Amino acid sequence: MSPIRLGVVGYGKIAQDQHVPALRNDPSFELVAVATLGEPCPGVTHFGSLHELLEQAVDIQALAFCTPPQGRYAQVREALLAGKHVLVEKPPCASLGEAMALVELAAEQGVTCLFAWHSRFAAGVESARAWLAGKRLQSVTVQWKEDVRKWHPGQQWIWQAGGLGVFDPGINALSIISHVLPEALFVTQASLRFPGNRQAPIAADLSMSDANGLQVSAAFDWDHGHDELWQIEVHCDEGCLRLTHGGAQLLIDDVPQTLETVGEYPLLYRHFARLIEAGNSDTDLQPLRLVADGFLLGERATVADFVD
Amino acid sequence: MSPIRLGVVGYGKIAQDQHVPALRNDPSFELVAVATLGEPCPGVTHFGSLHELLEQAVDIQALAFCTPPQGRYAQVREALLAGKHVLVEKPPCASLGEAMALVELAAEQGVTCLFAWHSRFAAGVESARAWLAGKRLQSVTVQWKEDVRKWHPGQQWIWQAGGLGVFDPGINALSIISHVLPEALFVTQASLRFPGNRQAPIAADLSMSDANGLQVSAAFDWDHGHDELWQIEVHCDEGCLRLTHGGAQLLIDDVPQTLETVGEYPLLYRHFARLIEAGNSDTDLQPLRLVADGFLLGERATVADFVD
Repeated sequence: MSPIRLGVVGYGKIAQDQHVPALRNDPSFELVAVATLGEPCPGVTHFGSLHELLEQAVDIQALAFCTPPQGRYAQVREALLAGKHVLVEKPPCASLGEAMALVELAAEQGVTCLFAWHSRFAAGVESARAWLAGKRLQSVTVQWKEDVRKWHPGQQWIWQAGGLGVFDPGINALSIISHVLPEALFVTQASLRFPGNRQAPIAADLSMSDANGLQVSAAFDWDHGHDELWQIEVHCDEGCLRLTHGGAQLLIDDVPQTLETVGEYPLLYRHFARLIEAGNSDTDLQPLRLVADGFLLGERATVADFVD
Repeated sequence: MSPIRLGVVGYGKIAQDQHVPALRNDPSFELVAVATLGEPCPGVTHFGSLHELLEQAVDIQALAFCTPPQGRYAQVREALLAGKHVLVEKPPCASLGEAMALVELAAEQGVTCLFAWHSRFAAGVESARAWLAGKRLQSVTVQWKEDVRKWHPGQQWIWQAGGLGVFDPGINALSIISHVLPEALFVTQASLRFPGNRQAPIAADLSMSDANGLQVSAAFDWDHGHDELWQIEVHCDEGCLRLTHGGAQLLIDDVPQTLETVGEYPLLYRHFARLIEAGNSDTDLQPLRLVADGFLLGERATVADFVD
């Protein structure tokens, strides 16, 4: 099969660090264009906007959206109306409703839509899911803590309304637990801490449950010091499962498990290629719904101003 | 057919003003019990809790939940597990996820679940929906303004996290427009104004759109003075439709339309009885999803403290 001709929209940190390297190593795709307001991507045809790209690179079959979630709805819509398959970085849109409208449009257009929860492709996640199947779960504890200065240097959109704040990394944890746990989760309590000078929370706690009454607690912190703590712990009658390093490592009763390490984005694009081939979509919204519910019912507190 | 034996859970303002009077006049139902922590309902068997009611009034077939949305999930779940049909006052739960879990459980149990968007039963709503069908819509303007002191005297839950604040009335407007407009709506911008001493907004603005790019703007205010302004205006190529008085009156190009006025709650219970008879549920979550998205992507501002 000849490679899928793909364009990338937005060439910021995540496109440079993850999407483009993954695409360059994937024979299923040919990276033929990048549309960005900023610096061009070396060695790839440059467009100043998605609109230009769609007009001029008419043989492009798929687009990967790496722009901020605010404003993404209109762009993805334009791509879907042009009949392109789309991969949309997380979170897919600034609102659940926008994302649901895209899901409907993709179905009408008969193209593939992938909401890219990349952390679900971390090395330990599928093994964790398999190990948990059929176990008697007692409780789940999530700690997802990092330094925003290290991971989002100078990025303003993440602090603006619709930018999610600490849930921008936190939604990665939510995408993992909503994939590995057996039942749909829902938020029962939330607290959100907003810096006085920002529109998005710098820290948050969520209590969640499911139809079986499982207790899930999650602590998110964006002001954690240099070393990340990205960890999910599941206590079962049968033992304790721990995903660390954002899901890249898996321990069962403190014993590290041997894992195949392909990388999140290479696996994500492999998934995208298979969806396109099969004519399917993958548009789970549970992680964003958990965040929306956190905002809906969360207690808000104002904390010290955040200075970059 | 013999009447459906029904119990009311929670006997606060909305139960006293609306549910019980509607039930007393509806031959489809027999009001046999009220469970409440507060004053008993005159002439009806009293229980101090839902749990007591379920244990002792075992022949009850249906329950209407008039308690605050926070904590309602656990109660409705208990009723569903006991095999009862449920009518749940708006908003159905404190979170979308809780409400979705109830929908699933009701389906598993094979009972009727009705999320009671009572404003959809206002006298002008169905006529408005019929008139709008097939029209070329230009824009929609919602103004939903009232005095919280008049409508929620001394109620604390509405100001607490999960209590929705000004969206407690505002969700009535959202339930109407999401019913009468042809396409699913989504929030594109929001601003929320929180009193410094409260966890819920006292005022908010939403910008919404749909798959056709319709512009919908809504202004919600809970500090509006004595006379309510509950109005929805839809501009079409073919003329201007206006729902006023919360949907009770309908004007087309300023001409008042003649309407049958049964009352919202009598129609709501008629709908509930028909759903039970047909073995169906009605669990639309679009109004709550619009509010959740408003909280998710809204700009927050702090305004003057609110004193009851």
